[in-house]
Amino acid sequence: MAVQSLPDGYPQFIERADGARIWDVDGREYLDLMSSWGPIVLGHRYPAVEEAVRAQAVAGDCFDGTSPRMVELAEAFVDLVPYADWAMFAKNGTDATTLCCTIARAHTGREIIVVARGAYHGAAPWCTPYPAGVTAADRQNLVYFEYNDIDSLHAAIAGIEDRVAAVIACPVRHDVRREQELAEPQFARALRETCDRIGALLVLDEVRTGFRLDARGSWESFGVRPDLSAWSKAIANGYALSAVLGRADLRDAAGRVYTTGSFWFSAVSMAASLATLRVVSTPAFESNLRAAGQQLRTGLLAQAEAHGFRVRYTGPVQMPLLTFADDDDFALGNAWASAAINNGVYVHPYHNWFLNAAHTPEVIEEILQRTDAAYAALAGQPVAERGLLTG
Amino acid sequence: MAVQSLPDGYPQFIERADGARIWDVDGREYLDLMSSWGPIVLGHRYPAVEEAVRAQAVAGDCFDGTSPRMVELAEAFVDLVPYADWAMFAKNGTDATTLCCTIARAHTGREIIVVARGAYHGAAPWCTPYPAGVTAADRQNLVYFEYNDIDSLHAAIAGIEDRVAAVIACPVRHDVRREQELAEPQFARALRETCDRIGALLVLDEVRTGFRLDARGSWESFGVRPDLSAWSKAIANGYALSAVLGRADLRDAAGRVYTTGSFWFSAVSMAASLATLRVVSTPAFESNLRAAGQQLRTGLLAQAEAHGFRVRYTGPVQMPLLTFADDDDFALGNAWASAAINNGVYVHPYHNWFLNAAHTPEVIEEILQRTDAAYAALAGQPVAERGLLTG
Repeated sequence: MAVQSLPDGYPQFIERADGARIWDVDGREYLDLMSSWGPIVLGHRYPAVEEAVRAQAVAGDCFDGTSPRMVELAEAFVDLVPYADWAMFAKNGTDATTLCCTIARAHTGREIIVVARGAYHGAAPWCTPYPAGVTAADRQNLVYFEYNDIDSLHAAIAGIEDRVAAVIACPVRHDVRREQELAEPQFARALRETCDRIGALLVLDEVRTGFRLDARGSWESFGVRPDLSAWSKAIANGYALSAVLGRADLRDAAGRVYTTGSFWFSAVSMAASLATLRVVSTPAFESNLRAAGQQLRTGLLAQAEAHGFRVRYTGPVQMPLLTFADDDDFALGNAWASAAINNGVYVHPYHNWFLNAAHTPEVIEEILQRTDAAYAALAGQPVAERGLLTG
Repeated sequence: MAVQSLPDGYPQFIERADGARIWDVDGREYLDLMSSWGPIVLGHRYPAVEEAVRAQAVAGDCFDGTSPRMVELAEAFVDLVPYADWAMFAKNGTDATTLCCTIARAHTGREIIVVARGAYHGAAPWCTPYPAGVTAADRQNLVYFEYNDIDSLHAAIAGIEDRVAAVIACPVRHDVRREQELAEPQFARALRETCDRIGALLVLDEVRTGFRLDARGSWESFGVRPDLSAWSKAIANGYALSAVLGRADLRDAAGRVYTTGSFWFSAVSMAASLATLRVVSTPAFESNLRAAGQQLRTGLLAQAEAHGFRVRYTGPVQMPLLTFADDDDFALGNAWASAAINNGVYVHPYHNWFLNAAHTPEVIEEILQRTDAAYAALAGQPVAERGLLTG
């Protein structure tokens, strides 16, 4: 089996999942560090979420109108996230990021959206990372700046300040195929100040970070609150849901934007989100996830040193990425990921990983036993030479 | 309770659903003729679909990669739909219509999409029916023609034939706030011929019609097959899923378009779709649904006449719309819908209805008993006068 764009050894088809483990169709077990690319934040098939799903499914899911779950969930988000005065729900992360831009345009009467170069905000023509089928008009109202570089933002908007509807940014620079990069607090604050100065909205794309770093909002500890934010992936522990949260004075614009989907009122994913939110909003969840991330980081770095590899471990520990020094073509990263998958650990060579609450200290220890074997296997391969400390 | 844009009496919150019935949070029961705006094609909580869902949920839903269900479902669609050589899956109908346009652009290297004026193809900025937050650039590469008017298509593309990537059309003119209109076979054939002549693709938007009119493709009986088609709503009997089907020679372009979503590989909705497809592909399903539609049409028209109202009953009988003559502002339509909802029938005054397989002859009879009471109630209202045959 081969999977397009993943190294040798990755399974094409997954059969089942439970807690921190997934099994492919050939019965091979993997300890999962990708968490289904983010949605699984409590572990696969987390009992309280599955129970909420079963209870809602008995009544039904997709009705002629919304169920009471939508109000309950909107209220739960508004209670959780300090800047949020309302919530609306959709299915894809892309639905939510696109809606934020559309609401910002409706509110400001302006057209330009300012985006960090290389950032991923979804897979619609305006934001998809590859050009096939995309027209120039799809990007006509976008301008670009460099993440963590406020001067580049000022340069990008010079002379068009009064045409900028919004600046959209991820809370972390989690671009693929590069080391991950935390936002600098002064950069986040400067984004907020610039938006306020020019009358533009600050949109935070929490699709990948939401419920993993700080459930109240990933920049809450910086004291930086956006006007609008987009959420998806982890908010319902694997059930299809996304959300837009916003400030009270944007309610009118949000109400004027026509948007809907056939399944946007479905109650089951909202029941799942309510059950997920109850867990992620506890201090124990947050500290345990951080501790798991720290344990994994410490272990993987110690193993790299023990096996003589020069590695970089970047990003928040809950969403890390392991890369190898002087490995621009990811030959070494790919080889290590192959060795990891062959030893039963599902990671990614150039996209951030996602920890979840099923990564207990015991599971992390089991992962580390397997990654130690992966490093050992890698050390015996020709490609490893260029990554070795003594190489 | 009041619902924005629906007449008085409509429930805001739905609590549960079963077969042809829904119940609001106050315990009021309705016979449902909207089928959750299309997704419910076998009836709410259809046993074989719910059983497939439960079986898949035990293994899991949202994995790190796809499950075997995706291959099984793609093969089932390709077996069912004569022109389809491959399938890809997403969540929203809008995902599927947008993807069709993007694939057409990638394949042809052209930018223009030709759209019927007033047609609904989804709620993204390029197609949403209301302008809030939409920029001119979002529509820059669209040109418009009039449905069922091939001359208007030729006029729309005059001089730009070699820039047209695709013509997108619904199999039925099911625009809101107007009488529904079947496609004329010669119009459908002329669309096909025109696309072939200018080297553009024909995209059929089956989101609303799919699995309701002819599961093989709504224009199959005309002998007209599109190059690409978009499906959603009914294909998984209420579970969130959409699909793009295409011809073999478009596989390369479809593979080059970067598109994905966090929940696009989820297995539960695909298991639901497999179970749904098994039913809708049977001759009995199709003839029963048509018979139910005919029974409803005959009954509602007879009642209108008996109560002295001049009405129009348009669209396919499986997706009909009842409107009143000389009722451009829908005052009478709204009043009748209010009377219907107050008598326990959930219809819509200006959006097509959707029949489903739970509409047995007995259920249709029960609906008609209730609509008879609705006509009677309407006849006693001042607004009714202008719709009366003798008025």
